[in-house]
Amino acid sequence: MPAAPAPRRIVALCGGVGGSKLALGLYKLMEPGSLTLVVNTGDDFEHLGLHVSPDIDTVLYTLAGLADPVQGWGRHDETWNFMDTLARLGGPAWFRLGDRDLAMHVRRTDRLRAGASLAEVTREFTEFLNIDAEVVPMTSDRARTMVDTDEGLLPFQEYFVARRCEPPLRKVLLQGAASAHAHPEVLAAMAAPTTRAIVICPSNPYLSIAPILAIPGIKAAIAAARAPVIAISPIVGGEAVKGPTAKIMRELGKPVTQDEIAAHYRGLIQGLVLDESDRDAASRIGLSCRIASTVMRTLDDKVRLARDVCEFADALRLSSIEPGH
Amino acid sequence: MPAAPAPRRIVALCGGVGGSKLALGLYKLMEPGSLTLVVNTGDDFEHLGLHVSPDIDTVLYTLAGLADPVQGWGRHDETWNFMDTLARLGGPAWFRLGDRDLAMHVRRTDRLRAGASLAEVTREFTEFLNIDAEVVPMTSDRARTMVDTDEGLLPFQEYFVARRCEPPLRKVLLQGAASAHAHPEVLAAMAAPTTRAIVICPSNPYLSIAPILAIPGIKAAIAAARAPVIAISPIVGGEAVKGPTAKIMRELGKPVTQDEIAAHYRGLIQGLVLDESDRDAASRIGLSCRIASTVMRTLDDKVRLARDVCEFADALRLSSIEPGH
Repeated sequence: MPAAPAPRRIVALCGGVGGSKLALGLYKLMEPGSLTLVVNTGDDFEHLGLHVSPDIDTVLYTLAGLADPVQGWGRHDETWNFMDTLARLGGPAWFRLGDRDLAMHVRRTDRLRAGASLAEVTREFTEFLNIDAEVVPMTSDRARTMVDTDEGLLPFQEYFVARRCEPPLRKVLLQGAASAHAHPEVLAAMAAPTTRAIVICPSNPYLSIAPILAIPGIKAAIAAARAPVIAISPIVGGEAVKGPTAKIMRELGKPVTQDEIAAHYRGLIQGLVLDESDRDAASRIGLSCRIASTVMRTLDDKVRLARDVCEFADALRLSSIEPGH
Repeated sequence: MPAAPAPRRIVALCGGVGGSKLALGLYKLMEPGSLTLVVNTGDDFEHLGLHVSPDIDTVLYTLAGLADPVQGWGRHDETWNFMDTLARLGGPAWFRLGDRDLAMHVRRTDRLRAGASLAEVTREFTEFLNIDAEVVPMTSDRARTMVDTDEGLLPFQEYFVARRCEPPLRKVLLQGAASAHAHPEVLAAMAAPTTRAIVICPSNPYLSIAPILAIPGIKAAIAAARAPVIAISPIVGGEAVKGPTAKIMRELGKPVTQDEIAAHYRGLIQGLVLDESDRDAASRIGLSCRIASTVMRTLDDKVRLARDVCEFADALRLSSIEPGH
């Protein structure tokens, strides 16, 4: 009887900038074709008649080596002649679309209009960009993140870009979640015995990960998975490395602590990766923890954290297979 | 009793490159705000989900001083990063859209989707581009030029750009003409006693002018106008200065002569402007003719021809007012 194939696939849930850093580390570390990224599309919106998928594009640009490391979004080889001209014509300038970036939105919109699904278009993009990973939207259906704030319910991009996350947040909703469908290949990848780990990237838990988990079937698939489920905390020393995670936690009345992140993901994950600056929290959390350097500045940082995540997953798997450990 | 205001407005029918040269000459020559350009929109098409209006944009770019004098279309300050990226993503590359040019199409499409008419969007563009002339589409309704060729019926841009006018042409049709509406301000400008002349620019008579004349009401308004109607022949010494006019005339079995241009416009015009190289034709044509240099290379050429056209119009008006002349 042949041995079962060694678990090798990582299925990672991720949003934009923060998550895509670890996604890049995993991508560089692992064998080609063994990474499945389930990407938040709650941030998607129609702008100027174009279907914009900010998190998918951030992930694609990051994996393709095209991301802008300075501004944290968009492409490093970008020009802005479209945008300048649009503003001169009286068009809206609050959401910046670079000349090269625009090709993604125009092409995506045209393919969607021709009947392709968001997953199909994304697959085409990964092929044209020579990315040897599966990048899958959390759903190809319309499901939009809405942010309930002190100023009322705001569409995500209005809250995030136009208002720079200023209005105090009360709640995050995913409009259309109930009728949205997870992609079967994602559910299958989560269930597969060859899956080494399910990883929740250090993306914003409320704005980026919660929408993915709100798609029917995804939470259940994670709960039923044989592979260990690991989250990497986006909090370092009581603050978010980047972005509004800590601000949002305060607005929701939650302490900005690793305990709170652990509580947020409890029941879903078997292990939590904490930054070394929060080493003390590990003993309190009541969950398997791994201490690692979670601040990713260089590519080496990203690959090192990815390696830590994989080793942690393998250790968790062994401990669950061998009772007594 | 006050004297009637002196006729000052020129209403000019024009297509893209050839016509816009004279349009620029008229624009530079005349007082601000006294030029109405009725522009062919039979070339309009949807590409990548965007509403592209090639002739309107050529006219706008020309009047705004933004046109590319070398390639004869698009903008002189153009970059191609969108197009390069689109091609890398597997998108169609046969119709070239520059980064700045794209802003026109995206903004126009977005405004049309929001309920603005093509005329309204065009007026907005003239304002933002500081153009002090009325640029009016022949219609804001959908009316599309189709070219019947030896290879079958082709949409205009497929014939013109993708096939480079290669398939022999049999007939030009304007799909949707019957239900298209001319703009009331155009009809009013044609009828106004203050109109100095109606000018048919040296655009392709079959591909650019015929669609304008096919819009219900335009021919009748020209026929009823008090102002003299003048065409500038696009033929010089048996060839077109640029573009496929001569090729098309041969394919239609017509001689490439001034006589043929005169016959084509007979009943519609009172005067024809001929290039000096075709001076001999003037006596044969049976129509008032003006000999001028119709090849416009420099801005001076354009303004000089515009001045000739205006003088010719004034002379025709006098001769019609004073019988015996």
